[in-house]
Amino acid sequence: MAGSFSVTPWKVEGKIDYEVLEKNFGITPISDALLKRIEKHAGELHFMLRRKIFLAHREMEWLLDQYEKGNKFYLYTGRAPSGDMTLGHLIPFLMTKWLQDKFGADLYIQIPDEEKFLAKKDITDIEKMKSIAYENILDIIALGFDPKKTKIFLDTEYAGVLYKQACRVAKRITFSTAKDALGLTNESNIGWIFYTSMQAVPAFLKSVEEGRNVPCLIPLAVDQDVHFRLARDVIGKLGYYKPAILHAQFLPSLSGEAKMSSSSGKDTIYLTDKPDVVEKKVGRALTGQQATAELQKKHGGNPDKCMVCQYYRFLFEPDDGKLEKIFERERDGTMLAGEHKKELSDRINEFLEEHRIKKERARDKLEQFLVKG
Amino acid sequence: MAGSFSVTPWKVEGKIDYEVLEKNFGITPISDALLKRIEKHAGELHFMLRRKIFLAHREMEWLLDQYEKGNKFYLYTGRAPSGDMTLGHLIPFLMTKWLQDKFGADLYIQIPDEEKFLAKKDITDIEKMKSIAYENILDIIALGFDPKKTKIFLDTEYAGVLYKQACRVAKRITFSTAKDALGLTNESNIGWIFYTSMQAVPAFLKSVEEGRNVPCLIPLAVDQDVHFRLARDVIGKLGYYKPAILHAQFLPSLSGEAKMSSSSGKDTIYLTDKPDVVEKKVGRALTGQQATAELQKKHGGNPDKCMVCQYYRFLFEPDDGKLEKIFERERDGTMLAGEHKKELSDRINEFLEEHRIKKERARDKLEQFLVKG
Repeated sequence: MAGSFSVTPWKVEGKIDYEVLEKNFGITPISDALLKRIEKHAGELHFMLRRKIFLAHREMEWLLDQYEKGNKFYLYTGRAPSGDMTLGHLIPFLMTKWLQDKFGADLYIQIPDEEKFLAKKDITDIEKMKSIAYENILDIIALGFDPKKTKIFLDTEYAGVLYKQACRVAKRITFSTAKDALGLTNESNIGWIFYTSMQAVPAFLKSVEEGRNVPCLIPLAVDQDVHFRLARDVIGKLGYYKPAILHAQFLPSLSGEAKMSSSSGKDTIYLTDKPDVVEKKVGRALTGQQATAELQKKHGGNPDKCMVCQYYRFLFEPDDGKLEKIFERERDGTMLAGEHKKELSDRINEFLEEHRIKKERARDKLEQFLVKG
Repeated sequence: MAGSFSVTPWKVEGKIDYEVLEKNFGITPISDALLKRIEKHAGELHFMLRRKIFLAHREMEWLLDQYEKGNKFYLYTGRAPSGDMTLGHLIPFLMTKWLQDKFGADLYIQIPDEEKFLAKKDITDIEKMKSIAYENILDIIALGFDPKKTKIFLDTEYAGVLYKQACRVAKRITFSTAKDALGLTNESNIGWIFYTSMQAVPAFLKSVEEGRNVPCLIPLAVDQDVHFRLARDVIGKLGYYKPAILHAQFLPSLSGEAKMSSSSGKDTIYLTDKPDVVEKKVGRALTGQQATAELQKKHGGNPDKCMVCQYYRFLFEPDDGKLEKIFERERDGTMLAGEHKKELSDRINEFLEEHRIKKERARDKLEQFLVKG
């Protein structure tokens, strides 16, 4: 069953077997008991938790123990700018917003504008990353984070705070260790080698700032886990709580590939895509349907293999009852591909239209969120 | 003649053959013609130039070409805090001050408060480096730099400016290259591996800030050259002028070792040493003298091997005529060791007393020099 696949912060390939991944990464599948505990405190469960789109974790039980003792956690997530954000990029941010709302949590959002510059040969201008970063930040603010509880920073603009702490992390990571964990080589550049220390900092920064240990929770896409496997050890050695982590699956591309990637445009929906582009892309989506309308009506399709169904499941139908109806109509053959796709692309376009309005409004709020230093 | 010796930014050992060093490092001995050119513009020659205490350079001829075309250079030097500064640490700073005065040059002084923390296992608290750094900065300001033309910054406090530029450098240095040049191993920590990029930044920062190419001159102790052998290549590739460099010899320790080291206290004079301590240390100095006063009077001594003579030559007797008299009295045996040492320790104590007064006054000027960001 476990075919060949690869999940690193730089490449996600193949058909991912999340069970194998959990085992390889040493992360814990989210249990129903854990979900109940989260629900007890939140008053409800986000559909991404109910549906195990967030499928694994590190130390969530410990985090809730702390919470129950009155030791509130803060949240940390991030986005490495490389281009326009995609629908897939929204998943950790939407979960983060929900957690902020339900747990009244402070939030640090790191925008490592140096990461892709250091990691990718073809990105040669670090200044260009900054304008992309600012566009991404507007997309993030548009999701509705609380400006009183949220700090957003670019690494290059916040290095006055981050660099010193990154040095503390870096001192405890040898090249050997980083090389094995992150898949570096002797030909990797020395900025890229150092970078993982910068990504570690927000996971204990609040403890530094407050002079006491504050639990931290990091919602992230599972490919980012590797940075924190390294960092959690070091953070513990520095005397801080190791951060808890919630791991999200990837939104598959419309053609059914492992990850909606911002580098392969045609099967990926960007937040900037115009309605006709969305319609075209969704029109090409892989569905679980039979070869002809007649066969589909007779045999029905498979919602697990239908990207239209999956996009509803991941993002566009929070109501489980309604989602089940969509799946059912796929299974029983009453919904044909064309109609199915049209409904989804309308739904996506409605979302994107609203998002663009919120993003425009976010421009005025930027200064409330940004910190420099 | 060339015994075994080692000169790296982390260890200076053995009897240094500066001719061999120049060859190994690929740096150019300072010629009399070059000195004449410097004298023409400065109106005089600093005794450390006349005496070839600054013994080698990179591209000083080019720098003066630029200067003659009206393209003024700026200066960059630095000090990695680890403890109290020694007399030896003053050499590049005194030359830098003279160059600032004579050429009206702007000056950046980098205080890499992370360097020793990253390089040394036994330094475990980066915050401690900061208070040492501030003490060192007061010592530096006390030397009389022009506050209107001088910026001093700690790396951890100026990383908001430095880190982005360091990433530009780092992207162009592979681990292989850094490893060979800096003597790193796979067990070096990833902060130490990255650090050389931070040291490179002030050598082109003014060009970044002004949006035009500004020549840079770096007076330094010769062990620091290795950082710039790496950096000069990269800086050139980034489209900036490669910095010119002036290389200083090390002030030998009082026992005649290669370098006065802040880590071997008893033969090293710190700027904080009290008069009796100075007297004791100088009292133990290696001299070029004969075994007894009688033999000394008969055969005379060797000023080249006499640390008392050498301290006059390096720092405490700017007048060549007077220095020659001191040397002569050593050679002809008329000056005995005890008297010789007493005169030097009085001279040093006089200097240190004045220095401490200037350092106290420097506290009020600190804000005029410090930049953060």
